[in-house]
Amino acid sequence: MKSAQPTGLNMGKRPLMTVMKYVDKVVRVKLKNELVYEGKMTECDNYMNIVIEKAVEYEGNGRKATYPRILIRGNNIMYIQLQPMLSEL
Amino acid sequence: MKSAQPTGLNMGKRPLMTVMKYVDKVVRVKLKNELVYEGKMTECDNYMNIVIEKAVEYEGNGRKATYPRILIRGNNIMYIQLQPMLSEL
Amino acid sequence: MKSAQPTGLNMGKRPLMTVMKYVDKVVRVKLKNELVYEGKMTECDNYMNIVIEKAVEYEGNGRKATYPRILIRGNNIMYIQLQPMLSEL
Amino acid sequence: MKSAQPTGLNMGKRPLMTVMKYVDKVVRVKLKNELVYEGKMTECDNYMNIVIEKAVEYEGNGRKATYPRILIRGNNIMYIQLQPMLSEL
Amino acid sequence: MKSAQPTGLNMGKRPLMTVMKYVDKVVRVKLKNELVYEGKMTECDNYMNIVIEKAVEYEGNGRKATYPRILIRGNNIMYIQLQPMLSEL
Amino acid sequence: MKSAQPTGLNMGKRPLMTVMKYVDKVVRVKLKNELVYEGKMTECDNYMNIVIEKAVEYEGNGRKATYPRILIRGNNIMYIQLQPMLSEL
Repeated sequence: MKSAQPTGLNMGKRPLMTVMKYVDKVVRVKLKNELVYEGKMTECDNYMNIVIEKAVEYEGNGRKATYPRILIRGNNIMYIQLQPMLSEL
Repeated sequence: MKSAQPTGLNMGKRPLMTVMKYVDKVVRVKLKNELVYEGKMTECDNYMNIVIEKAVEYEGNGRKATYPRILIRGNNIMYIQLQPMLSEL
Repeated sequence: MKSAQPTGLNMGKRPLMTVMKYVDKVVRVKLKNELVYEGKMTECDNYMNIVIEKAVEYEGNGRKATYPRILIRGNNIMYIQLQPMLSEL
Repeated sequence: MKSAQPTGLNMGKRPLMTVMKYVDKVVRVKLKNELVYEGKMTECDNYMNIVIEKAVEYEGNGRKATYPRILIRGNNIMYIQLQPMLSEL
Repeated sequence: MKSAQPTGLNMGKRPLMTVMKYVDKVVRVKLKNELVYEGKMTECDNYMNIVIEKAVEYEGNGRKATYPRILIRGNNIMYIQLQPMLSEL
Repeated sequence: MKSAQPTGLNMGKRPLMTVMKYVDKVVRVKLKNELVYEGKMTECDNYMNIVIEKAVEYEGNGRKATYPRILIRGNNIMYIQLQPMLSEL
């Protein structure tokens, strides 16, 4: 898909570099099935595949389950909630 | 996927270059789950992964929640509403 | 994904080159969420990301909303209706 | 995605080469939204993006609409029904 | 997507090479729409696009239709049931 | 999609390398259709295509079926539950 990319364009900051900064921090991830997973993101790659440890699963407002470690596939992530970092305040 | 692309074809303006112009502007994004997120798009890449700050979540006509910062995965975006820029008027 | 492609095969005309011919023409696009958007397609790329100006949104048979400019992500397009061009008649 | 592919492996016949043989023939395509489109496939590429002319849209057993020309995006195709060719009988 | 891949890593056996061994054998494929297709898989590629001949379509426990030849798009496959081969017993 | 990747960035540990360590171990996989499959993961690749042997299918809390061998397509995986390894305790 290379040729369709505006190479050489200044794209400002990049989302993938931003999410990498949250490795080892707590994130909250909403998947396509509307469930939400919260826990420490210990791994992440450029597809947004992420590993979350001590993940708590939420459905609506209720806690549903916990998992010691889950690997979430990036394409099924709707969004990742990121907390502004202290260094940015 | 390179070989299937009509390289050398004049493709006119390109959507990805257009969306890059809206970095640091307010956008409204509809996701596959029908929810809408509005806020300042601070980051964007060629997959249409975008970071929105002070994102307001809407469901139908009602405001549902706000998030300081969310990273939306590009493949789950249905569309991005863009306001015509003053320089174009 | 290069190696699985029948390079060197005559593929006849190509859909992506066809849709490029409709830049600046009115198209009608159906998305995965069953909504339909109609308006002038001002931009298009090889992922079928498209920009539509003065887009009218239809749900079933009713008009639902209008947008000055929307960027639709290609992977969420079910199909694009194309009108045969005069030059083809 | 190249490195994960078993290059050098004999893959027998390939689906994409097979569908190319149906250019200018009538195909029946089922999309993710369960609707079916039937008509002459005039164009096709390696993503399975296809152009169908005089497309008839079916929902369940009923005919719903016709379109002079539609471009269907490959990733939203569930399957394409292909009729065995006379030369194969 | 090359750079994110752990090249040089021993990945053990690979799923795509395994499915290739089932060319010309009967497989059972479940798609995203919950329908199941069973028949002889005559073609297959690295995207898991597959051609099935004399495909029987099942919905729940009932037989719904048969097709002489269908091309199923890989990304819409949930899973392929594979029977252990005699040589493995 | 190469140019959008922050090459040269230290990405910490990578999810795909982590899942490879679970080859020949029992995993639990949730798919987009909400069904869960549990069994020994005997094969895995960089798309997260995985082969599970003696797979037990669960729907909600009930056991629904078992399969000697299934190949699950990576893009339809919501997440893989991984048990912490003894060597990590």
